[in-house]
Amino acid sequence: MERLYFEDFAPGEIVEYGDTPVTAEAIVEFAKEFDPQPFHLDPEAARESMVGGLIASGWHTAAMLMRMSCDGFLNRSASQGGPGVEELNWSKPVRPGDRLRVRRTTLSARASRSRPNVGLVEFLFEVLNQNLEIVMTQKNVVFILRRAAGEAAP
Amino acid sequence: MERLYFEDFAPGEIVEYGDTPVTAEAIVEFAKEFDPQPFHLDPEAARESMVGGLIASGWHTAAMLMRMSCDGFLNRSASQGGPGVEELNWSKPVRPGDRLRVRRTTLSARASRSRPNVGLVEFLFEVLNQNLEIVMTQKNVVFILRRAAGEAAP
Repeated sequence: MERLYFEDFAPGEIVEYGDTPVTAEAIVEFAKEFDPQPFHLDPEAARESMVGGLIASGWHTAAMLMRMSCDGFLNRSASQGGPGVEELNWSKPVRPGDRLRVRRTTLSARASRSRPNVGLVEFLFEVLNQNLEIVMTQKNVVFILRRAAGEAAP
Repeated sequence: MERLYFEDFAPGEIVEYGDTPVTAEAIVEFAKEFDPQPFHLDPEAARESMVGGLIASGWHTAAMLMRMSCDGFLNRSASQGGPGVEELNWSKPVRPGDRLRVRRTTLSARASRSRPNVGLVEFLFEVLNQNLEIVMTQKNVVFILRRAAGEAAP
């Protein structure tokens, strides 16, 4: 499969990828390690809380997005990582039985001023559930090698 | 231990908490599930990459921050969760052998217009390593019950 470089990301392009089933077991396992709040940990306590039932930690959803993006395009791209996140919103709860996918929009692409071999691509990631409701949005920049730089590398 | 309500978070207050050792095993385990890029997965491949050695997924660092915040104050507060993240920056790599802690600054606190029983507290979280270098910053709002609302609850 061909490697994706900076030049392959055109502003305005929209692609979809991913299909991650969400289980109660995975929600609880993540929460035990990283986000031990009752509505992520305990179906019983969650039912009596404001959220009305077990929901995934927002950080779990963010981690699932990262995994879908690795499998969906990052791991066959010349990505050099990113500096952070500009915006992250949890717009709807993620619950056991949901299936998540990603809609990625390329917002902008520009050369780096300080690193001529690298471009900066700004993406909007929308995580959708099986009802095509947006459960999370995230906007961030990824550094990606320019084709000439990548093809010159050993 | 007394429960923390909206009124207990004073703008300008700075508190520190957490002490999380970072191991190569934990870095690789997280990466296998959520961020399978070579520099998070494989010490050998990481040595030859731009980062010069195994580094933690930024999402792993974010998840470790969440865990330290749960243990540090959230799980004894009347937190109602948050809508998202305003800003998240990974400023330095997190490596095996690091020990992470959190410096939390309360930036602002205001009543909710739509939910009179809730207040909005805006925090800056800085994750520090053992050399007191900032490895990650995060800014976000948390909904927290007002004391009168919390104490009226069953």
